[in-house]
Amino acid sequence: MTLASLSMNQCDILILIAMQAEADSFIQKWEMTEFVDPSLAPLPARCYRTSSQRIILVTHGKDPAQKFDYVGTQFAAITTWETIKAFQPKIIINAGTAGGFAKEGAQIGDVYINSQGCQYHDRQISIAEYHAFCHKPIESKLAQSLIKEHSFLKEGSISSGNSLDTTSEEIDRIARSGAHLKDMEAATVAEVATLFKKEIIALKAVTDLLDGEHPSATEFLQNLQLASNKLTEALDKVVRKLVGEV
Amino acid sequence: MTLASLSMNQCDILILIAMQAEADSFIQKWEMTEFVDPSLAPLPARCYRTSSQRIILVTHGKDPAQKFDYVGTQFAAITTWETIKAFQPKIIINAGTAGGFAKEGAQIGDVYINSQGCQYHDRQISIAEYHAFCHKPIESKLAQSLIKEHSFLKEGSISSGNSLDTTSEEIDRIARSGAHLKDMEAATVAEVATLFKKEIIALKAVTDLLDGEHPSATEFLQNLQLASNKLTEALDKVVRKLVGEV
Repeated sequence: MTLASLSMNQCDILILIAMQAEADSFIQKWEMTEFVDPSLAPLPARCYRTSSQRIILVTHGKDPAQKFDYVGTQFAAITTWETIKAFQPKIIINAGTAGGFAKEGAQIGDVYINSQGCQYHDRQISIAEYHAFCHKPIESKLAQSLIKEHSFLKEGSISSGNSLDTTSEEIDRIARSGAHLKDMEAATVAEVATLFKKEIIALKAVTDLLDGEHPSATEFLQNLQLASNKLTEALDKVVRKLVGEV
Repeated sequence: MTLASLSMNQCDILILIAMQAEADSFIQKWEMTEFVDPSLAPLPARCYRTSSQRIILVTHGKDPAQKFDYVGTQFAAITTWETIKAFQPKIIINAGTAGGFAKEGAQIGDVYINSQGCQYHDRQISIAEYHAFCHKPIESKLAQSLIKEHSFLKEGSISSGNSLDTTSEEIDRIARSGAHLKDMEAATVAEVATLFKKEIIALKAVTDLLDGEHPSATEFLQNLQLASNKLTEALDKVVRKLVGEV
């Protein structure tokens, strides 16, 4: 590693997306090209940038043999940590897909923003000192200000956990917490950003209904392409606005 | 950051312990001194080393206001990632406490080793391509070889998740998977080490019985000191043996 490699890839906007399928249409639309940053090795993450180098998009990467994406909070933690260090972004966006509640008005393809914060639903420690660590929502004034200019986004609170599947006990817990969406990364990206005294914008398109009739995995696979297209439309509008401001 | 800081703290043995209370008696026994490595900033992790600098112990750190330790898989992921990069250890040990099953013979204070692997119980994705990512145990031949020389250790398989509390559905799931212990970090430390093509040794002392009468948090707090002392005894023996070999 050379000293030059520590800073050559700074950017204005860093977009973190766990799955390649959630990111591909944005990468195409913005004509981003892949590059390798040595400080991320040996993470499986993949990096893309615009020709201006002002915007960098990073996915968690895929396993070449098994074809799974490295989704979830552990790879979100390291990928967020290392890319903030490497690229020193002014703005951090976590984009992806999520489950929503039909009874709260969520429909497949709706895109939500974290204007009401991010939290965990699978960090449960019944010891008084751990209450804030487990349950305090991570707020984002940046997301709150964006909602005014992007009325097509739905306002919400996102609850993150490490599983796509949910037990009925978990769905009850998420609903009781007041969260509108269940995803697998946003709270971690927000928490790691907090270490660097930064807020995040989370944009999440609904693939499945937690209080619907079908298992999440079935609906997720059925609606992933549609939701990813809706996500790209929303992300495109938000990034076009932000890029004029930073 | 200078280039020198990237390599000045290399060590033979890296010991990762989430909670300060689990680590304090080992730090005292080995007369370790605290030091700061700039590459870990702004992680809350705390670093200690022996005067020979051959052994480094890292805890996840505590929140100064709320007094919680940064336990769980997200901070385990980043702390493991960054300390392997910074200290380039030959051997990685994850030490800590865990819940056990009385019906499998676990008693409070027993110390287990990961000779039968580590896995997750809160990474549930019902999509075929994700089966290995979610359920394949991460094996350790190093742990298997150690058990022959340290017969006081119990052999086992460790299942990790992000919560101290468990639902009855989770306890059933852990038992069905064949795991002997439930902790909050081992699978993540093992998974991150795998990125660097390394195995880990996990040593876990039992604080609570998952199939017992009391809530985990109550038993955990009651038995944390006793289990931490037992952990230090076991860790001391294992490290004394290893330090003669590397």
